[in-house]
Amino acid sequence: MMAASKCCRLSGELSRRFLASVDTVLFDCDGVLWRGDEAVPGAPELVNALKRSGKRVFYLTNNSTKTRAMYSDKLGRLGFPAEPGEVFGTAYCTALYLRDTARLQGKVYLIGGGALSQELGAAGIPHLGHGPDGVTGGMKDWATLPRDPEVKAVVVGFDEHFSYMKLNRALQYLQDPECLFIATNTDTRLPLEGGRAIPGTGCLVRAVETAAHRKAQVIGKPSKFLYDCVVNECGLDPSRTVMVGDRLDTDIQMGSTCGIRTLLTLTGFSSLEDAKAHQDSGSLDLVPDFYVDSVADLLPALTENAH
Amino acid sequence: MMAASKCCRLSGELSRRFLASVDTVLFDCDGVLWRGDEAVPGAPELVNALKRSGKRVFYLTNNSTKTRAMYSDKLGRLGFPAEPGEVFGTAYCTALYLRDTARLQGKVYLIGGGALSQELGAAGIPHLGHGPDGVTGGMKDWATLPRDPEVKAVVVGFDEHFSYMKLNRALQYLQDPECLFIATNTDTRLPLEGGRAIPGTGCLVRAVETAAHRKAQVIGKPSKFLYDCVVNECGLDPSRTVMVGDRLDTDIQMGSTCGIRTLLTLTGFSSLEDAKAHQDSGSLDLVPDFYVDSVADLLPALTENAH
Repeated sequence: MMAASKCCRLSGELSRRFLASVDTVLFDCDGVLWRGDEAVPGAPELVNALKRSGKRVFYLTNNSTKTRAMYSDKLGRLGFPAEPGEVFGTAYCTALYLRDTARLQGKVYLIGGGALSQELGAAGIPHLGHGPDGVTGGMKDWATLPRDPEVKAVVVGFDEHFSYMKLNRALQYLQDPECLFIATNTDTRLPLEGGRAIPGTGCLVRAVETAAHRKAQVIGKPSKFLYDCVVNECGLDPSRTVMVGDRLDTDIQMGSTCGIRTLLTLTGFSSLEDAKAHQDSGSLDLVPDFYVDSVADLLPALTENAH
Repeated sequence: MMAASKCCRLSGELSRRFLASVDTVLFDCDGVLWRGDEAVPGAPELVNALKRSGKRVFYLTNNSTKTRAMYSDKLGRLGFPAEPGEVFGTAYCTALYLRDTARLQGKVYLIGGGALSQELGAAGIPHLGHGPDGVTGGMKDWATLPRDPEVKAVVVGFDEHFSYMKLNRALQYLQDPECLFIATNTDTRLPLEGGRAIPGTGCLVRAVETAAHRKAQVIGKPSKFLYDCVVNECGLDPSRTVMVGDRLDTDIQMGSTCGIRTLLTLTGFSSLEDAKAHQDSGSLDLVPDFYVDSVADLLPALTENAH
């Protein structure tokens, strides 16, 4: 009976009742609020109206290429003024995980970009590996390269300098079963404007997992760690919270795992057909409670509500 | 009843009867005849004794980092004098596949090393991509980089210059569903001397597969294509042929698929416990007919046979 009430289009009176039952809105960004560098039309107006009506907004993103401050800048530039403290990205949350959950005593070997390096630095976590790592020597040298004995974790995030040499360094560290193995996220592609895409962090994670014969612990959605960070830092009432996203396998799955309501928007990765297919096959954790064509569709309900 | 007769140690009289029933021996190389750059003790004597007693020997290797000629050189150097025509490696066989099976009309985008490039060139297959491919521009440039419209296949082999840029180029070509996607092999690690290892081609293949949302067609074992190449070029009687290897999931699986007898040697990757576990779980394609601690163990049976 629960299944029958899932995957409803939010419109009209249902939208008004739904928004009245919500205090906290957790937004995925890419495919929800923007695509590449272009805001989804009407999305800035919706988010700002939510805030004006007293609702709290947080941004939960798997993208590890920006610090909280960089995300705050991009949000502001695209029309969503936001404090860094409202942003829970995987660069920031990976650093939190290592410092507060794993309580890492040692260094990180980092496959990742500048933002991840900055967030690790801000959390006081020593790390190495950032930047290019060119080919030197031959196979025997690669198998016996010098290792920093203080490295106790390998972290894999988005890294445009990813290379065979980095893959090999990660393997050499991960052969020690005590070495932690953390991935920021496992998204297979990074969507850009015009339906184009480039390889996502998930490709790099699979390469390292295949070499290491180990699975990484994943910080990003569908893991609930980003949500736990919001709860710990800001508090929220799960019964009055909604997760809004464009991907069933990350955003909607995470919302289901956390026991909060879920809203799929069709401006990004997943389609309504995808959601119905999961409903038919009984994979209900991947079926949103509600859907909209665009988050902008909620604007009328909210502005009428405000009158 | 078949299962009960599998996984027998070859020794004494059984070895003599077995060798008398064999005309053609297919050897995997790494972990069987050598480890890294050191011959397995006694292996050269065994192979040369096999040849002196009139048996034909072929070398079937998933390693794509050597041409047939380079393998012939290494075999000779380690004590196994061999003609290039006796070697069926994935660099050579990938070129054969593209030319004679796929009948490729177009170019290859190659993730691979010099040997693969040479074998493609020798087969008259135009290709690009060999060598380093440094980071230039930003994400938008990567999604819109110029593509050669004549590229009709992506080939992934071992490439020490593997990089995010190469991964991205492969994705851009593979978004065309007509573009072929070939992997030389999917071994996860390349074993070296002293139990050390570096990442194998399988890691690169998994990265590209994850980006492309497609599975590669694999040339190497456990696929039977290397075997088919031996059959086509040299002919053999399957009932008088044995595959000798150190890996259950490649060598032994391929032998089972081809309907020939299989012999596991314990000088490399897989253990007798691994084989027994597959026998207990009923995965009989992964259980060898026979095993030896080392191929050198067959030498007494062969030399006594010769008297």
